[in-house]
Amino acid sequence: MSKIVSFGEIMLRLNPAGYRRFYQANQMEVSYAGSEANVAVQLALLGHHSVFVSKVPAHEIGQCAVNELRRYGVDVSEMRRGGPRLGVYYVEKGASQRGGKVIYDRADSSMALARAEEFDWERLLQGADGFHFSGITPGLGGEMPKACLEAVRTARRMQVPVSCDLNYRAKLWTPEQAGRVMTELMPYVDLCIANEAEAQDMFGIQASGASGEERCESVARQIAERFGTKEVAVTLLESLSSEEDDWSGLLYREGECRLSRKYRVHIVDRVGCGDCFGAALIHGVQKGWDAGRQIEFAVAAGCLNQTIEFDFNLVTEEEILALAEGKGGDLKR
Amino acid sequence: MSKIVSFGEIMLRLNPAGYRRFYQANQMEVSYAGSEANVAVQLALLGHHSVFVSKVPAHEIGQCAVNELRRYGVDVSEMRRGGPRLGVYYVEKGASQRGGKVIYDRADSSMALARAEEFDWERLLQGADGFHFSGITPGLGGEMPKACLEAVRTARRMQVPVSCDLNYRAKLWTPEQAGRVMTELMPYVDLCIANEAEAQDMFGIQASGASGEERCESVARQIAERFGTKEVAVTLLESLSSEEDDWSGLLYREGECRLSRKYRVHIVDRVGCGDCFGAALIHGVQKGWDAGRQIEFAVAAGCLNQTIEFDFNLVTEEEILALAEGKGGDLKR
Amino acid sequence: MSKIVSFGEIMLRLNPAGYRRFYQANQMEVSYAGSEANVAVQLALLGHHSVFVSKVPAHEIGQCAVNELRRYGVDVSEMRRGGPRLGVYYVEKGASQRGGKVIYDRADSSMALARAEEFDWERLLQGADGFHFSGITPGLGGEMPKACLEAVRTARRMQVPVSCDLNYRAKLWTPEQAGRVMTELMPYVDLCIANEAEAQDMFGIQASGASGEERCESVARQIAERFGTKEVAVTLLESLSSEEDDWSGLLYREGECRLSRKYRVHIVDRVGCGDCFGAALIHGVQKGWDAGRQIEFAVAAGCLNQTIEFDFNLVTEEEILALAEGKGGDLKR
Amino acid sequence: MSKIVSFGEIMLRLNPAGYRRFYQANQMEVSYAGSEANVAVQLALLGHHSVFVSKVPAHEIGQCAVNELRRYGVDVSEMRRGGPRLGVYYVEKGASQRGGKVIYDRADSSMALARAEEFDWERLLQGADGFHFSGITPGLGGEMPKACLEAVRTARRMQVPVSCDLNYRAKLWTPEQAGRVMTELMPYVDLCIANEAEAQDMFGIQASGASGEERCESVARQIAERFGTKEVAVTLLESLSSEEDDWSGLLYREGECRLSRKYRVHIVDRVGCGDCFGAALIHGVQKGWDAGRQIEFAVAAGCLNQTIEFDFNLVTEEEILALAEGKGGDLKR
Amino acid sequence: MSKIVSFGEIMLRLNPAGYRRFYQANQMEVSYAGSEANVAVQLALLGHHSVFVSKVPAHEIGQCAVNELRRYGVDVSEMRRGGPRLGVYYVEKGASQRGGKVIYDRADSSMALARAEEFDWERLLQGADGFHFSGITPGLGGEMPKACLEAVRTARRMQVPVSCDLNYRAKLWTPEQAGRVMTELMPYVDLCIANEAEAQDMFGIQASGASGEERCESVARQIAERFGTKEVAVTLLESLSSEEDDWSGLLYREGECRLSRKYRVHIVDRVGCGDCFGAALIHGVQKGWDAGRQIEFAVAAGCLNQTIEFDFNLVTEEEILALAEGKGGDLKR
Amino acid sequence: MSKIVSFGEIMLRLNPAGYRRFYQANQMEVSYAGSEANVAVQLALLGHHSVFVSKVPAHEIGQCAVNELRRYGVDVSEMRRGGPRLGVYYVEKGASQRGGKVIYDRADSSMALARAEEFDWERLLQGADGFHFSGITPGLGGEMPKACLEAVRTARRMQVPVSCDLNYRAKLWTPEQAGRVMTELMPYVDLCIANEAEAQDMFGIQASGASGEERCESVARQIAERFGTKEVAVTLLESLSSEEDDWSGLLYREGECRLSRKYRVHIVDRVGCGDCFGAALIHGVQKGWDAGRQIEFAVAAGCLNQTIEFDFNLVTEEEILALAEGKGGDLKR
Repeated sequence: MSKIVSFGEIMLRLNPAGYRRFYQANQMEVSYAGSEANVAVQLALLGHHSVFVSKVPAHEIGQCAVNELRRYGVDVSEMRRGGPRLGVYYVEKGASQRGGKVIYDRADSSMALARAEEFDWERLLQGADGFHFSGITPGLGGEMPKACLEAVRTARRMQVPVSCDLNYRAKLWTPEQAGRVMTELMPYVDLCIANEAEAQDMFGIQASGASGEERCESVARQIAERFGTKEVAVTLLESLSSEEDDWSGLLYREGECRLSRKYRVHIVDRVGCGDCFGAALIHGVQKGWDAGRQIEFAVAAGCLNQTIEFDFNLVTEEEILALAEGKGGDLKR
Repeated sequence: MSKIVSFGEIMLRLNPAGYRRFYQANQMEVSYAGSEANVAVQLALLGHHSVFVSKVPAHEIGQCAVNELRRYGVDVSEMRRGGPRLGVYYVEKGASQRGGKVIYDRADSSMALARAEEFDWERLLQGADGFHFSGITPGLGGEMPKACLEAVRTARRMQVPVSCDLNYRAKLWTPEQAGRVMTELMPYVDLCIANEAEAQDMFGIQASGASGEERCESVARQIAERFGTKEVAVTLLESLSSEEDDWSGLLYREGECRLSRKYRVHIVDRVGCGDCFGAALIHGVQKGWDAGRQIEFAVAAGCLNQTIEFDFNLVTEEEILALAEGKGGDLKR
Repeated sequence: MSKIVSFGEIMLRLNPAGYRRFYQANQMEVSYAGSEANVAVQLALLGHHSVFVSKVPAHEIGQCAVNELRRYGVDVSEMRRGGPRLGVYYVEKGASQRGGKVIYDRADSSMALARAEEFDWERLLQGADGFHFSGITPGLGGEMPKACLEAVRTARRMQVPVSCDLNYRAKLWTPEQAGRVMTELMPYVDLCIANEAEAQDMFGIQASGASGEERCESVARQIAERFGTKEVAVTLLESLSSEEDDWSGLLYREGECRLSRKYRVHIVDRVGCGDCFGAALIHGVQKGWDAGRQIEFAVAAGCLNQTIEFDFNLVTEEEILALAEGKGGDLKR
Repeated sequence: MSKIVSFGEIMLRLNPAGYRRFYQANQMEVSYAGSEANVAVQLALLGHHSVFVSKVPAHEIGQCAVNELRRYGVDVSEMRRGGPRLGVYYVEKGASQRGGKVIYDRADSSMALARAEEFDWERLLQGADGFHFSGITPGLGGEMPKACLEAVRTARRMQVPVSCDLNYRAKLWTPEQAGRVMTELMPYVDLCIANEAEAQDMFGIQASGASGEERCESVARQIAERFGTKEVAVTLLESLSSEEDDWSGLLYREGECRLSRKYRVHIVDRVGCGDCFGAALIHGVQKGWDAGRQIEFAVAAGCLNQTIEFDFNLVTEEEILALAEGKGGDLKR
Repeated sequence: MSKIVSFGEIMLRLNPAGYRRFYQANQMEVSYAGSEANVAVQLALLGHHSVFVSKVPAHEIGQCAVNELRRYGVDVSEMRRGGPRLGVYYVEKGASQRGGKVIYDRADSSMALARAEEFDWERLLQGADGFHFSGITPGLGGEMPKACLEAVRTARRMQVPVSCDLNYRAKLWTPEQAGRVMTELMPYVDLCIANEAEAQDMFGIQASGASGEERCESVARQIAERFGTKEVAVTLLESLSSEEDDWSGLLYREGECRLSRKYRVHIVDRVGCGDCFGAALIHGVQKGWDAGRQIEFAVAAGCLNQTIEFDFNLVTEEEILALAEGKGGDLKR
Repeated sequence: MSKIVSFGEIMLRLNPAGYRRFYQANQMEVSYAGSEANVAVQLALLGHHSVFVSKVPAHEIGQCAVNELRRYGVDVSEMRRGGPRLGVYYVEKGASQRGGKVIYDRADSSMALARAEEFDWERLLQGADGFHFSGITPGLGGEMPKACLEAVRTARRMQVPVSCDLNYRAKLWTPEQAGRVMTELMPYVDLCIANEAEAQDMFGIQASGASGEERCESVARQIAERFGTKEVAVTLLESLSSEEDDWSGLLYREGECRLSRKYRVHIVDRVGCGDCFGAALIHGVQKGWDAGRQIEFAVAAGCLNQTIEFDFNLVTEEEILALAEGKGGDLKR
């Protein structure tokens, strides 16, 4: 059991049930999620001491977000309270040829308006075995780029390994803004999670190669080279329809690339898939697994996430391992 | 934006949620629909001044039907109130090898018992750019065949183009009755929507050709020839299971036939698919699109309709165009 | 049928079903409401040409708000699209000694950020028989006080009667801010709707009298005197518990005060009660009813509103009249 | 355990959940009920061999009605299948001063169109200890008055006691029609269930007396005198609001009148209350109870019915007795 | 119509709706099922006099189980009441690579603790055309093996054909226990339903052959040989994912083996599939169908069961025949 | 913030929604509760370090119970996993004169079968400020009386104050068994929570006095005298109907008795009321409040609990204080 500190925003997610469009919704399902929060939950379920650092408003809806993290075992003792609002995002599930939709309403959230000084990284990272954030956190703007920079610098100084999921969101910042800020942060990152589009948007990286796999490797190597990153994981999600995709990943470590098996997934809820891929990678690092086992475990986790409603990946290590070892889909009595 | 007048019945639709059978339903989902009402809603969503002409009982359930049309922008100022009841139909969704079921309870509805004189077509068609009905409307019996004949004659006189979806319903009338009435109406129709089975049931048309596409063309040409119809669109729905079908269409115009691409659809709710195909065709006519664009747009609309719960096709022109141009199924953030 | 223009914000309302607390909600009921929107809906249901003027974001959730207004017959042709977001508010119903809660998340909404020049009052008020707003609209800040002032000045010039519900919201502005802005607007108001607390908060008016009724009269007379308002209606809601209250009202007109009967109400949903009271008053003015009939009708409308889920008062004139005339609570077969 | 044969219609009941108005319903709760069906279910739950004789259409919705009766132990082996449709009724629950509503859509149902010869009373009443119907059955029109007359005549000849609930429904027939038909049937009735309004509507009986109780007695004595009825039970439901009423009853037997205690009821669902009052009376007759016990049992049953959703009175003899003996409202662990 | 007596346990089944995991469930769907109860319901729906013999506790939840059987026409007059509890099982549906889960909580149920003497087989089997049980019934332990032995011996003596589904449940007993008990029972069995895994677990039977079909035949022949069973049916369910499988079966009769067609099934709810396969076989025996028709009918029934929520197979003979004859998956209007 | 250790069982609670009877439930609401678990949650919400010690089975349903405690901030690090099952109880809400029902199915649960040695009280009570249990825990039988005795003896030795709610459950043990075991435990109890019926059932205490208040005082004094208990709190719940009661309490401390105000409560869910009364008393002890403040706070907490669905009392200290100080029932915006 390692102590991992995740830093990011948690939002209220609202979605019509089943395949209903927004226009048809007279009630919406309520959950609470966010890229780093999803990572924190997955890490807690994998048995780690998972600390989530964030800020939510000091009212009941803010408390609901905290409760949901706590429910799955996340340490919420470092959550800050205050500020104006909890970010909201609306999700409409797609079907067949009809694409899904996500509408963000996250501007001016309590987290986006938090000040860097509210987070004392020296204390927060005491005894930590890992620090995680994604590109969304600095993308929130305000003092968040500064807070992230302080966090990763402190982590480096305290020899806490840092993981980062690029997670480019065009609604938050432009490629230029993202590139500038992330370029400053990347040198402190030990494990980077990316996909081809993000690498291009943020860093202008051009993938080469004909197949998806070759292009993933090209991206991984370029990131590792440019920033001296020890480990780079690249996901490959090939969408067949709103309900089906092919899903795999690749892990670069010390010059070597390991490709995972590929899953044909019948999707229940795609959102959050990359987050638990990242969490599972961190788990593999903490466990000291070899690259092959690590990437297979991470891709299996991401596969299972797509079969579960909402963002949180409510699966155990045992379940992920069973799938990674080829035992999926049976009815267990 | 054109003014299109649709004439038909709107009913209460009841269905158990999800895959529940009628036997298992302790609640049913409520919606309001009908072939011409579906057309009217799709036209309103495509930006037209869409007028729906019908009659509903003067009580709250009747008003609910009106409200639902109004919600999506249909002009309901020409709805009549009175008569005994709103028709009801029950829908049970199929799954895999288990077929779906529709039970109709529409006899003696307010619309079926309406008198022809309640509809002053001279006034109703003032300034109209199109008049639409389907074979269901005269099939309701009573004075409805007379009302339809008056409508199409007035439309012809006022130079309002007429579209008609054959929509043969065996529960409403026999092939002989349908053939006699429709044969009187068809000469006034400018755009006819049909499929092979309907053309045979109503007009005894025998399709020739080995492939579905050839048979569609044969049907289109025979209809055009027999009635002098300018445009004939024929849909081709090949059912693979209760949850999957292949869906395409063909448009005959001035001697030429244009075939659309074919979609493999994972079905959410099949009912209403042909209606929005028709509405999308009317849209294409109003826009003055060429036959290729028109049929691709219409088939894309019908494809999307099958991915949406209930009959109404709650999609925008932008969404249909995106699919017609090959961009479907992505998650839009 | 009169044309009444209402000006204000419409928001997304979210509430857990039944008596569930926010902490227990894994889904929330979705509706769309706002003080002036509630007025607009009630006026449409009473048969008027009810125009709602506001701004919502150009995405699906914004469109849902428009659809909901349209569903009940409101003219939405003057809705503006754009800006960042739709305001949200969360409602938790109270029970017995446990009070209800409303959490607002409305800052920086599309409406709050709209510019005054987006509303061309000359055109908007063409042919109008009434203009309505509440203190919430200028309370939104930004250019809204300016827009309101332009609206009421134009209305006065065009001889369109103006109605205003004070609706003080402490979360929007301070008593000083509200007092300053509202004092500028009040001289243009022909019908003012208030309660004792609002009159004190906004204008420092001290009610005199021992009974609630005497205090209402004192408030009405002071408002009328200070601003020269022709008609002032004051509501009296005496809360017995979260589920029961006593509800009545008083109308001051030309020096005379008329007190309504008092209802003991078993509450289903209290929110929106004052709004439909206001709409019903406007209806009475348009009908030219005498003061007694007007206030009885308005209080009956407000009573019924409390028996209906969500803010909109989905009742007809016939139902309100029946209650005002003492025929409530029967099962009508 | 006695064999009781009930004869009447069973319909599909649809109602929005909770206090939602029809306008707000996007789903409706489904149940199956009807006055005589409710009696049959209550009798089965009280341990009798309860046979329900009726006709439903030969499709799944018809079968659902049969299944629901069978679920609670009613003998459905004498149900006929065929005809066009199952009657439907829509129920909207009232709240406080807002009254509830029932919309009937029962015309031309399979039962209303059934022919008298479909029911062979000689065989159906073989071994029966009771025959029950209500005024609704002949009120359905067509051959139903004839079928009822044949039934009661056969019952008299076979010495099977007959019970009848007047159940006047103004939507089915006029007072004149009802009076003429019921006057022919009443001489065969041994136990009549009525209330003041029905007695006046059907037979022009004018109640005398100041209190509700006196008027009930007056009604009972007049019915007994006019038709020579052995037992007449009169219910007294005084509505306080949509959610509260006072409920009691009176039983006339051999010249004596016994008044029950009066319950102040907090209503969950009022529909069906009189039906189970009648069933409980029949139970008392079969048990040979004295008049006091019989009327207290029946009123207690009617009270409990109002605390249960939907029409069927899902209570046991033990529960009714406990209330009749003054032990209601406790939490039983 | 034959009289078939089934003997086994009925339990409360609880499952989260849709694809929700147990962790996410704040409500669960309630149904009542059990292998032999499922058989009894299917037989009743196929038109037989289907008697279910079991024991449930004498409280409301026990009565609910009885009501559910009665709803679908099962004769529940031989249900015993008493004992401590109704068994419970929890079902979580799988999706794609995520497997489903069943958690049993059935120990010490009223049925498991019932005494053998509570079942007077002489009387229970009077006039019966068949007796059915599965390996679960003796697997419940206590006096159930004894009760089963008495039942099959009585059946043999009274010349009532016996059918048995092996239904090995590892949570109930070890292979050794099961083998010992079942070996004693099997000689009385006329129709045995099995699959490869069960035959191996219970009897150590090793299937030979490369294909699934060959292995099924091998299992059938070995069972028939070892126990002298007249008919042996073997199911072949090849799982592709949690949502898709291939499903077929084989019937051995008098030395001949008949293989059914194979269905690719899109699964709605897999539980109960084997039970209705068995019931359909019994139906075929009672009808005197040839082996080919019998196995096709049974496999079609099992296919349809997988398309229906919950265990009970709510299909009619007409629907099964339609599929067996190749007419599945159409929308019936 | 004090550390309080609670020891007891947590069960799965299932109840039909709203006022539905068990017979009508096709789904049930899922929650997890138990007397001591309810106390633990209330204490956590009041800001204490609340440790819940219990045992649940090592499967998902057991984990759900743990998750629910954790969600509200309870320390679950001392939960044991293993054993056969989680106890279940079924709750049916009453209405008006219809009483509610609770059916227990808790025999042989993992907690009931836990061994005393699984709980090392020396370690568990390290640093604790309080230990809480109720009469249900020893009532579970097996080694639970022994475990409780070890717990309270260790607590006394370590000077940890002990609180105990008598909570007599007739379904668990007889008055004689309960009296014998509890008499052994009571000398170690510092704060006893009781009501008149329990005191009589367990200890044969006869209350004297005409009013409920006098009888409460009599009970408190007898308990204090017999066992030397420092503080005794007695609750007084006078049921008016299933939906309304009068609720108050009395606290005996050092010879003095303090009576609380009395609340007329409109009940949402009565279960768990006494538990949070107890938790609130413990809070008062920890805060060092005077007897008057303590009892008013506890009764206010119990009042609020009855206005909240399910057992857990999801209220904050601030909300309880507001009610205790007379500010309840307002709508807070």
